[in-house]
Amino acid sequence: MLLSTIKEVAKRAGVSVGTVSKFINNIEVKPKTRMAIEAAIKELNYEPNIYARGLKMNRTNTIALILPTVWHPFFSELAYNIEKNLRALNYKMILCNSEGDYKIELDYITMAKQNQVDGIIAITYSDIEAFISSNLPMVSVDRFFNEEITYVSSDNLMGGYLAAQKLIESGCQSICFIGEGSKKDNSTRNRKKGFINYCEEHRIDYQVCEMIGDHDKFDETLKQFLMDNLIQQKKIDGIFTVTDAYAYFIIEKLKEYHLSVPEDVQIIGFDGAKSSKKSVIEISTIRQPIELIAKHTVESIDALINKQTIEKEIILPVEFHQGSTTKH
Amino acid sequence: MLLSTIKEVAKRAGVSVGTVSKFINNIEVKPKTRMAIEAAIKELNYEPNIYARGLKMNRTNTIALILPTVWHPFFSELAYNIEKNLRALNYKMILCNSEGDYKIELDYITMAKQNQVDGIIAITYSDIEAFISSNLPMVSVDRFFNEEITYVSSDNLMGGYLAAQKLIESGCQSICFIGEGSKKDNSTRNRKKGFINYCEEHRIDYQVCEMIGDHDKFDETLKQFLMDNLIQQKKIDGIFTVTDAYAYFIIEKLKEYHLSVPEDVQIIGFDGAKSSKKSVIEISTIRQPIELIAKHTVESIDALINKQTIEKEIILPVEFHQGSTTKH
Repeated sequence: MLLSTIKEVAKRAGVSVGTVSKFINNIEVKPKTRMAIEAAIKELNYEPNIYARGLKMNRTNTIALILPTVWHPFFSELAYNIEKNLRALNYKMILCNSEGDYKIELDYITMAKQNQVDGIIAITYSDIEAFISSNLPMVSVDRFFNEEITYVSSDNLMGGYLAAQKLIESGCQSICFIGEGSKKDNSTRNRKKGFINYCEEHRIDYQVCEMIGDHDKFDETLKQFLMDNLIQQKKIDGIFTVTDAYAYFIIEKLKEYHLSVPEDVQIIGFDGAKSSKKSVIEISTIRQPIELIAKHTVESIDALINKQTIEKEIILPVEFHQGSTTKH
Repeated sequence: MLLSTIKEVAKRAGVSVGTVSKFINNIEVKPKTRMAIEAAIKELNYEPNIYARGLKMNRTNTIALILPTVWHPFFSELAYNIEKNLRALNYKMILCNSEGDYKIELDYITMAKQNQVDGIIAITYSDIEAFISSNLPMVSVDRFFNEEITYVSSDNLMGGYLAAQKLIESGCQSICFIGEGSKKDNSTRNRKKGFINYCEEHRIDYQVCEMIGDHDKFDETLKQFLMDNLIQQKKIDGIFTVTDAYAYFIIEKLKEYHLSVPEDVQIIGFDGAKSSKKSVIEISTIRQPIELIAKHTVESIDALINKQTIEKEIILPVEFHQGSTTKH
């Protein structure tokens, strides 16, 4: 929006875009030029927009996307779709792999505060709450900070509920949730919560094998859990994992003990991301609506930048995908 | 480099970085300020650098990475590594999924010419040769344009050679190359060429099933080829595919006809990308040195921006990865 505005003003005033930009940013221009630009702005009636929207600040038409790593099926599918939506609105996308380093995230927050980027889309589980404020154009994906920070997410609660329901409908007798998560990972918790909700509503036996925070010890904990409940004794015949990556990990572990999926144990993952547009989702999973997440995220950041009022919490519907790890 | 230079000058002159930037860009500053900055530049002996390197132009410390799509294991692994290397040199990375649309690629070339980005890293097979010039800071990955455009690539020729050799060493009697490629895809052709080189050097029977350009008809051609050479008659027992994606595609096709891999047919792909850092490469393949490609690409673009002389052609070694689709 800004660019076309400035372009039109420059054309009308017979000066370069750079000169108009100087004028807007209060850098000195020749008196004659100043008058021409002022006249053009008046003629084009752009004053209200320019000033009301705070356009005296430089716009970069650039949005930073901060995610843990783009080298991951879910994040690469999401980054692809976010860039596509941003491009349609004439934004460029700066991509940053934070790998959970909050210092890198803070760098981008500083850039946004200094108007080096117009806004931030962040997928972060770090403790950055103290550094973000409600007037910073930022959309958080998958993580709830507080009522003031716009937040777009899948319906994780419903996803967990659906996973439990599908395992039971496919013939499981005793099911469990397996996952680990950051202490701050709100979405993870809702997946588990939805799973438990279903089990308790329907009085179904369930177990939870979870590690919050200290990930190093999880391998051992998980191994012991599988040994106790699946290998030495076949207590469990259905597993819901917090992500697809976990589902694949468990499938490999079970193979080592000659347990077959879905014959001996049925498994449902969470994410449903594909590693490329043409690839297929092999396992049974709860698919996040990645295209919709991208669309709503980009609409929200654009609205925030243009100081429009928007919904602060956008929860999008998930779907069960029938793959090869549950019985038909 | 620029930032630290300006920062030091600003500190010495007792003014803000923005003021030094104005001075460098010939925007008016107070006479007293101008003198302080000039003195600081002289004291710090930065004049030669600033002027020699063309630093009167604005630097954005931003590099555009243009690739077909980040939603793909090879490109997401590459984008991850390129961003990591760029960040170490204080560059931000703008990511753009061109999906082969040369108009999008031209947008970024224009941005580079207008100094809105400092340089471009491009993976493109479009006809953009006429729009790029030797003084545009651009590094091409995987595609050779001409002697003047810096080019980083895997040793595709050796990769094809190695694939043929490994198929024969694993017991294959008659082997083939299967692939499709853009008319401009130099790397694809070298993979095939290396494959043929090995076969001809060792007087081994080989076939080629290839489609250049018109991709729509390839499905049919490929189906007929598989029917003639593998399904109705077992003429071929080893396949080298132009990419891993093709290898997976062929494996699925063969499954439909109850042919087993590697028992009936052995397959070697090309790329060896993983869909995430933690995932494993399942198939036998020629692995591109993605980390090395990223490292050399970033070093090259940084050198070009700083007007240093660099090698115009960087060819990096590939490796055979033993997976489940060839016999041990």
